[in-house]
Amino acid sequence: MFVIITYDVGEKRVNKVRKKLKEYLYWTQNSVFEGEITLSSLAKCMSELEAIINKNEDSIYVYEVKNPRNIKKKVYGQEKSFETLFL
Amino acid sequence: MFVIITYDVGEKRVNKVRKKLKEYLYWTQNSVFEGEITLSSLAKCMSELEAIINKNEDSIYVYEVKNPRNIKKKVYGQEKSFETLFL
Repeated sequence: MFVIITYDVGEKRVNKVRKKLKEYLYWTQNSVFEGEITLSSLAKCMSELEAIINKNEDSIYVYEVKNPRNIKKKVYGQEKSFETLFL
Repeated sequence: MFVIITYDVGEKRVNKVRKKLKEYLYWTQNSVFEGEITLSSLAKCMSELEAIINKNEDSIYVYEVKNPRNIKKKVYGQEKSFETLFL
């Protein structure tokens, strides 16, 4: 399954959220992670994230596409990669 | 077609980019727009955005899903909507 995860999280929690997401997916834009993942890994990732975020303030969207062939990505401007950035 | 557009754009240009995207899609998270759109409207939107952004600094990703049934969205925490915010 291919997923895109976007987030809008409080300053105090954003590094923890990024660190967690980096264990599962690729950090491709300021508040966007994407990549292929199994259902069980996604479930584990999300339950760990739910323990980090403040549900009354923070927002995480998970877009799931079962078959990666059903989604196309186009890049305008820079294709950013944060993999090299040390968290 | 369903699209998700995420962006990481310089401070000086971000309001212009948001104002343009609001003409075509829904602003659903800090740097995320989404919604259904025709190919021709998307092409028009993107050419207008390309005239706004600085391609050497800014980054816009367009994820296209032909059949909206092939993508599922889950929300953790708050479902933010910026439609009421006046730009």
